[in-house]
Amino acid sequence: MAFKIGLLGLGTVGGGTADILLHPEGRHPLVQEISLHQIGVKSLTKKRSIQVPPNLLTTDLEAIVTNPEIDIVVELIGGLEPARSLILKAIAHGKHVVTANKAVIARYGREIFTAANQANVYVLLEAAVGGGIPIIEPLKQSLGANRLRNIIGIINGTTNYILTEMTQKGASFSEVLATAQKLGYAEADPVADVEGYDAADKIAILASLAFGCYLKREEVYCEGITKITSSDINYADKLGFVIKLLAIASCPDNQPGNNTAPLQVRVHPTLVPKSHPLASVNGVNNAILVEGEPLGQVMFYGPGAGSGPTASAVVADIMNIVGVLATNPQPSRLDALLSYAPQGEREISPISEVYTRFYARFLCEDVPGVIGHLGTAFGRANVSLESVVQIGLVGELAEIVVVTHHVKEGDFRKAIADIEKIEAIKSVANIIRVL
Amino acid sequence: MAFKIGLLGLGTVGGGTADILLHPEGRHPLVQEISLHQIGVKSLTKKRSIQVPPNLLTTDLEAIVTNPEIDIVVELIGGLEPARSLILKAIAHGKHVVTANKAVIARYGREIFTAANQANVYVLLEAAVGGGIPIIEPLKQSLGANRLRNIIGIINGTTNYILTEMTQKGASFSEVLATAQKLGYAEADPVADVEGYDAADKIAILASLAFGCYLKREEVYCEGITKITSSDINYADKLGFVIKLLAIASCPDNQPGNNTAPLQVRVHPTLVPKSHPLASVNGVNNAILVEGEPLGQVMFYGPGAGSGPTASAVVADIMNIVGVLATNPQPSRLDALLSYAPQGEREISPISEVYTRFYARFLCEDVPGVIGHLGTAFGRANVSLESVVQIGLVGELAEIVVVTHHVKEGDFRKAIADIEKIEAIKSVANIIRVL
Repeated sequence: MAFKIGLLGLGTVGGGTADILLHPEGRHPLVQEISLHQIGVKSLTKKRSIQVPPNLLTTDLEAIVTNPEIDIVVELIGGLEPARSLILKAIAHGKHVVTANKAVIARYGREIFTAANQANVYVLLEAAVGGGIPIIEPLKQSLGANRLRNIIGIINGTTNYILTEMTQKGASFSEVLATAQKLGYAEADPVADVEGYDAADKIAILASLAFGCYLKREEVYCEGITKITSSDINYADKLGFVIKLLAIASCPDNQPGNNTAPLQVRVHPTLVPKSHPLASVNGVNNAILVEGEPLGQVMFYGPGAGSGPTASAVVADIMNIVGVLATNPQPSRLDALLSYAPQGEREISPISEVYTRFYARFLCEDVPGVIGHLGTAFGRANVSLESVVQIGLVGELAEIVVVTHHVKEGDFRKAIADIEKIEAIKSVANIIRVL
Repeated sequence: MAFKIGLLGLGTVGGGTADILLHPEGRHPLVQEISLHQIGVKSLTKKRSIQVPPNLLTTDLEAIVTNPEIDIVVELIGGLEPARSLILKAIAHGKHVVTANKAVIARYGREIFTAANQANVYVLLEAAVGGGIPIIEPLKQSLGANRLRNIIGIINGTTNYILTEMTQKGASFSEVLATAQKLGYAEADPVADVEGYDAADKIAILASLAFGCYLKREEVYCEGITKITSSDINYADKLGFVIKLLAIASCPDNQPGNNTAPLQVRVHPTLVPKSHPLASVNGVNNAILVEGEPLGQVMFYGPGAGSGPTASAVVADIMNIVGVLATNPQPSRLDALLSYAPQGEREISPISEVYTRFYARFLCEDVPGVIGHLGTAFGRANVSLESVVQIGLVGELAEIVVVTHHVKEGDFRKAIADIEKIEAIKSVANIIRVL
């Protein structure tokens, strides 16, 4: 018996998915039980790099999600609408759903999973985070015995490529961005990547899965990489760090019985110690580190995007559904590891409540007493310092770099507000959090 | 409804497993549906670090695997017998089995999986390879869409600890081994680790899963780390490599339609380029790199041993079975991704057929023409060289290091046999393969 797939979208990932399903030889035998039944596209006449039987194509996406013959709808059109409505309609018609759509899941996950659980269908999303890296399935199927505490990821390939090139070639952000756009590593409109929005969608999803709760995407703190300069990268290097755009989700109070405490979920450029496993993740690769008790730390590394890797994840999801359906086509209860039914919603702490280390770079008059002023301002705000170093001179101004211990962000910001009032301090050139 | 576990063994991993099951708070809700029903131990009176209800303990392991109340038998006693017999008896009594026993699965996998598939029960083994790192489940559940080609792993923590310490501290093998034994990172009898047998068991299992076939454990080529010296580590460093004990499984001819070509499965010390993701895996950590089409490369990294991490993997397996059983307690067909039913057996190529690069170190008289002799001998055997460097003098002898291109191992060995006959060559100090 073959299970019938309705594919929405035949772009980069859709084409890769069709390619796998149409060429099952050499893959897991289960791939042969999956039949590509219909493909929804915008244009029937567009030239495509993948050859599909033309009779599978239709421009009527609604007809696919309501087609009684189809078992699983695979949504690869991206964007919020009509993706969200099509997913919900597919669920309402009893279809299982596989999606790579991080934007929809991050914003409408609660609505979608609630509908799916009521309709007794699966909604799987391995391809939404980390491209070809298995991370969603391991989180759901392999790590549930743990009390998870932290997820730290490099989950946007574009920004990791840009930061890697800036680090290795000493180039500026805008130069590297232009090259990345030429090479197809960055979109013509790069905002979602370079401002961290894409990473924020993904970490919202990982946090929800890891901590078993819904959360509000708009509460995720998000800061991009546009203000990172070659100077910051150089100073970080001298201090023993590389700069990465990290997505972090923490459950600092994940103690037995306490699953209501606010989470910390944030995306920002971060100084990562060179000895840390994430420091050597370069180029368009992604990596996700998961920390829990009693596990300790595991890390998942690989290609975070691209047609083939992402299609590998999409087909994995299809196979997981087919594996379960083949044993039991009409289950009265969903598999608790494959489905997703969180127990409620949790808040995200405001960034001012987060404890972290900071790197700050100041430009100031080269006069005696400046370091004393800085130290006093930080001390008054309860911010303890790990190091204060005068790095050199920029024109007539002295450049001073400060690294703090773990401090409350709100306290640190108070100190910075005070420091901006010191006459000798000409500017706060940059502030970057430190892992 | 709770699913009842019969646990065989309450040592390091058994204790960790009991600890998770007895304290489900803060973990996935499914853990609460798992009930620890009986625990088989050698001694009822032994002092243990974990507190378990004493009425669960029994010394009668046979009674556990035949107990009609028990749903899942968890075998954590290790070793070949009675583990093998207990697993088979549990299967014969309709129990699902979870095991961490790499030795049994590597040798008796065919017997065990054949019995399990006939009895319609699952045998899961996440904890047998890579400790807490999810690798078996991702291979089975997340990567099946791919044509897998290579698995390269650091899958023995003891040897990785020893090589890391030798590299970082310049100490000798025997010194570091003694320290590792004191710290509990190496067993009193270290043979299975340092000779590579443990890694060979594990790579045999990974190869079988990745390529969907049974294979013969005794055909896995296996070479340990006892001959690695500080000199080799130093020269490797100068050439841009670190030395790691790698376990490698390759399917060079994994083309559509060809799933009968011999596999390459081997364990040996290897020079790994410093830029390779496996090069920075240090200490007792493990990492497994999986390569396939269209995926590319993904890597899984984490703690390869220890009570907590390994117990995390054991409980993951239990949860996977419970997840499926809860939807359907008496399935007529096993889930094809969770079960394991390879299509046949495949041979492993003899090591002489493998293509690899080599590093070789020679001690020879410091006379003109030696490098010419070496070059001629390699050339005659069809071995092309990447570099030949006279590194220095050891006493009155010159030390020459050769690195080859990818060559057939049999050809390389022929050249070495010829070289040993050259009068000026006093000894072949070491030969190590290069990734």
